[in-house]
Amino acid sequence: MDPRVREHAAVLVDDCMDVAAEDDVIVIAPSVADDLVVALHERLGELGAHPLTLWNDSTALRAYFRAMDPADFRLPEHELAAMEAADVVIMIGGSENVAETSDVAPETMSARSRAREPVFNTRVEKRWVITQHPAPGNAQKAEMSTDAYADFVYDAVNKDWEAQREFQAQMVQLLEEGEEVRIVSGDTTDLTMSIAGMHGENDAGTANMPAGEAFTVPRPESVEGEVLFDKPLLRQGRELTDVSLTFEDGRVVDYDAAEHVDLLEATLDTDEGARSLGELGIGMNRDIDRFTYNMLFDEKMGDTVHLALGDAIDDCVPEGTTANESAIHVDMIVDMSEDSRIEIDGEVVQQNGTFVFEQ
Amino acid sequence: MDPRVREHAAVLVDDCMDVAAEDDVIVIAPSVADDLVVALHERLGELGAHPLTLWNDSTALRAYFRAMDPADFRLPEHELAAMEAADVVIMIGGSENVAETSDVAPETMSARSRAREPVFNTRVEKRWVITQHPAPGNAQKAEMSTDAYADFVYDAVNKDWEAQREFQAQMVQLLEEGEEVRIVSGDTTDLTMSIAGMHGENDAGTANMPAGEAFTVPRPESVEGEVLFDKPLLRQGRELTDVSLTFEDGRVVDYDAAEHVDLLEATLDTDEGARSLGELGIGMNRDIDRFTYNMLFDEKMGDTVHLALGDAIDDCVPEGTTANESAIHVDMIVDMSEDSRIEIDGEVVQQNGTFVFEQ
Repeated sequence: MDPRVREHAAVLVDDCMDVAAEDDVIVIAPSVADDLVVALHERLGELGAHPLTLWNDSTALRAYFRAMDPADFRLPEHELAAMEAADVVIMIGGSENVAETSDVAPETMSARSRAREPVFNTRVEKRWVITQHPAPGNAQKAEMSTDAYADFVYDAVNKDWEAQREFQAQMVQLLEEGEEVRIVSGDTTDLTMSIAGMHGENDAGTANMPAGEAFTVPRPESVEGEVLFDKPLLRQGRELTDVSLTFEDGRVVDYDAAEHVDLLEATLDTDEGARSLGELGIGMNRDIDRFTYNMLFDEKMGDTVHLALGDAIDDCVPEGTTANESAIHVDMIVDMSEDSRIEIDGEVVQQNGTFVFEQ
Repeated sequence: MDPRVREHAAVLVDDCMDVAAEDDVIVIAPSVADDLVVALHERLGELGAHPLTLWNDSTALRAYFRAMDPADFRLPEHELAAMEAADVVIMIGGSENVAETSDVAPETMSARSRAREPVFNTRVEKRWVITQHPAPGNAQKAEMSTDAYADFVYDAVNKDWEAQREFQAQMVQLLEEGEEVRIVSGDTTDLTMSIAGMHGENDAGTANMPAGEAFTVPRPESVEGEVLFDKPLLRQGRELTDVSLTFEDGRVVDYDAAEHVDLLEATLDTDEGARSLGELGIGMNRDIDRFTYNMLFDEKMGDTVHLALGDAIDDCVPEGTTANESAIHVDMIVDMSEDSRIEIDGEVVQQNGTFVFEQ
């Protein structure tokens, strides 16, 4: 086995989840990630912990979704029971074909997401992490060989997370203290929002691996202006490109995309909160130096900003404060490397990708 | 996909488990059985049922077992919770290397089995079935090409189970009415036992697929004599050959094997009930025409008898009757095709593989 797989397992089990002998651990993995599953079992055994592995296979899910009447979805009691009894959840992405569910009706996916919401809500109350195994389908989507993609993944994942945490802390402090954020890029994006009173969070190795962003939550109803997401978004096996959104009083009032506008519309119509923002994030993991059509990496990329439609991240929202609620949380990315700036309370904190604390 | 995989899935879901829309179904599978997992998801979706797939990978288990201190095993709460909430459990065997756990200490396997006993006890109260996917490791063990082995598996599994049930019912009736059984083979096996008052059961497509046996449970303390199991037994990745046991007052008082006697001894010493019999079975699936080192098939083979050390099968034991209890249930096979006979109450009911009701 590639020794970097064992390092990856140790980063997940030790750095991210701090697993101990008393923990019941759920691993959720596709079969293509078998090496990482083996390495995780080895490390969990060394610690005396207790794994249960759920097989998350997109080919099987596709067959199930296509056969299933959307009206028949209901809460899966066995899955909820397992999740409730778990202490730690490690979710592994990886695919031999990232378009495997591209011929499933979006309504079917949405119906299933709604039925499983209690499973999702239970999981996010646990210690959890989502990561990526370097599978051929993901490499292909990134237009890389599987070998080069593995280098990319392990460079982003197996690193000094303490040093990265300190670097990001400087941006987190600006978000923590700031009130009004303005994001400008070319003549297509000029968006303002209030983050007054919201917490800034430092993503340096807990729920996402790779980690590498500073993030907060906009105040609902404060978002105004236009944004063009110039990095594509892969959703339900299809590619949404050049998504543009216009916000008034915090809600999307106009939208467009280069294709699959129906998919964008279905996403925006999921529920009441799907037209408002739940996150503002600033990518700061510079080992992620290219776009790979994988949000887990793309949103951490240096010189980018991302915004998420849907559910607000609870950790950023002080008790007693209102934030957006939705069954979805869909991240979309703006390239900030050229002709771009982030302002906080009128001060430029990032210009063309360079932070004010780096000058 | 081979159309026989979909037939296999339908036999499991419809014939064996009679799944309906209200069912929460747990599928337990190795990654090598991915085709069958996909076919099961499709059929479960058509019925509106709710699958949860647990990934049972021998390579990952080996890594876990070797890293784990046996003292750290305890009941896995997440696995138990999922099992308790399930209605149906479909377990799929299949391996790329049947010796994958051969370098795990038998004590580790035993410690894990003891810790998981409540999971086992919960599962057997559900509707459950165990089956086999034609994987390369199992084909190799059977000394067959993977293609020829697939023919063998599907011939044994995808058949007219109603006709098979009627054929077996004749033997079940003899077991139901009989009191004293004597099994004689060559000069190495001459064993007597009482089955008085125990039920005879017809295995024709419920808990095992392939099915194909008539079985009952001996009265504890009634078993006397010697038996040589001339078909090998694969246990914990190792092969036990020529196991011989001597019974007095229902308990094993002497034992031997061609090799791995330590493994046989560890099995017999698992607990108090591990030295007594929990099953007498008569193989009647004649599509299973060769020995393949896989108990699920071997014990159903025509012209064989099998005996199990350990836990008695509850369905055969009338309320208020005592039967053997143990954490293990280990089947072992006697070839009855030559110089052999089964007697019930002094009448020969099978001679050299031919039943009295076939003459």
